[in-house]
Amino acid sequence: MNEEWLKDDETLDDLQLKGICVIQKKDAFRFGVDAVLLANFAKVKKGARVIDLCSGTGIIPFILAGKTDAANIIGIEIQEPMVDMAKRSVEFNKLQHRLEFINKDLKDIEFLKKLPKVDVVTVNPPYKLKNSGIINMNDENAIARHEICCTLEDVIKAAKGVLKDNGRIYMIHRPDRLADIICTMRQYKIEPKLIRMIQPNFKKAPNMVLVEGQNNGGTFLKWEAPLCIYNIEGGYTEEIDKIYGR
Amino acid sequence: MNEEWLKDDETLDDLQLKGICVIQKKDAFRFGVDAVLLANFAKVKKGARVIDLCSGTGIIPFILAGKTDAANIIGIEIQEPMVDMAKRSVEFNKLQHRLEFINKDLKDIEFLKKLPKVDVVTVNPPYKLKNSGIINMNDENAIARHEICCTLEDVIKAAKGVLKDNGRIYMIHRPDRLADIICTMRQYKIEPKLIRMIQPNFKKAPNMVLVEGQNNGGTFLKWEAPLCIYNIEGGYTEEIDKIYGR
Repeated sequence: MNEEWLKDDETLDDLQLKGICVIQKKDAFRFGVDAVLLANFAKVKKGARVIDLCSGTGIIPFILAGKTDAANIIGIEIQEPMVDMAKRSVEFNKLQHRLEFINKDLKDIEFLKKLPKVDVVTVNPPYKLKNSGIINMNDENAIARHEICCTLEDVIKAAKGVLKDNGRIYMIHRPDRLADIICTMRQYKIEPKLIRMIQPNFKKAPNMVLVEGQNNGGTFLKWEAPLCIYNIEGGYTEEIDKIYGR
Repeated sequence: MNEEWLKDDETLDDLQLKGICVIQKKDAFRFGVDAVLLANFAKVKKGARVIDLCSGTGIIPFILAGKTDAANIIGIEIQEPMVDMAKRSVEFNKLQHRLEFINKDLKDIEFLKKLPKVDVVTVNPPYKLKNSGIINMNDENAIARHEICCTLEDVIKAAKGVLKDNGRIYMIHRPDRLADIICTMRQYKIEPKLIRMIQPNFKKAPNMVLVEGQNNGGTFLKWEAPLCIYNIEGGYTEEIDKIYGR
């Protein structure tokens, strides 16, 4: 790799997972606990093919590369600067044989449909509705957080286009959108199969939700115990420590 | 009241709420924690009109009569022997001016539509699908627990038929049916507004769910912290003690 592999405004962050590192901008959208929880929620079998939508700088593909025996993981991201960072991270980690990043709009369903069908879709989409709050529509952070470039329905439609029959989608989102998630999944014949609420601690209302859906799956919705980030004393819970490999 | 007010196979159970008692059969379907939690979840304003669907022996109307200043509460129940008990409980408690029980099938939408529209619907419907488990279709207990006489859609359709514009429905059900509840509510333009999961304790998966929906309401789904029945030592939580007035 030449001198250009890390720019002045970027950092190389160690995932504490088999030596994998990812490039991120210092002062822009950086991966959070949500991406880590989603990557840990997804069930990815040996040899599986995976597509990560709204992939950003590729955090979820990199965690899945370290944690699972997936054969092939493709990240789809609309923002070119993020794809550029993800591609340089692939080279840095020498993961070219398993990871690929494509700079495409997930609304380009015709393009997506041409890809080989996958076993698993993961997606950490923009959480907020387009019109919620004051936003700069050209801002990279805003695009990652608000439904500027894609709506929840666009995301589920894209997943439908790439999933094998009975393939699974794993999504993290805000609980206030769960009715929309469930109804839109069903509209596209993706059946919600498992839900896990995420709470700051066991006494607080959930502020994130993990959803597993199955393409053309039968009707039965299972629930797991909520995942709590902090214990009541303010430290991380054992489960969070385990997820972060501490 | 004459000697016939309590039959040999019945008990008179004190709700520990303003002296209110309800008649129940000794060895048949008796009210459980779910009815009590639902009655406590429902927001009923002073002077409100309420209909309780799948009312059974009337436990929810009797709790609401004790806890709220509802002007009028009507229980609708398909099983005549249960309505008979509920009516005798009304007389025993001298609540004829506020409580009424009607022996009707909630699928009789034309009848329901003739009733004055209400502010609140409460319903603790049969949880289980018709074909789940071995059941005796004529058994009173089976009718209370399985969707023999009414489906989830019948219940929501009935609520739609009696609710005022912006009126609220409060339902308790099993979490595995939440996708069905949300999608069926939306199908009838009842918007899910608030969800609260109920867990045996904070480490366990939820086994019941409380849902508030609003007739023709706008889209925003709020979540409360889960309600835990037991603390980790095995005793009731403070919240449950408070709900039961202990």
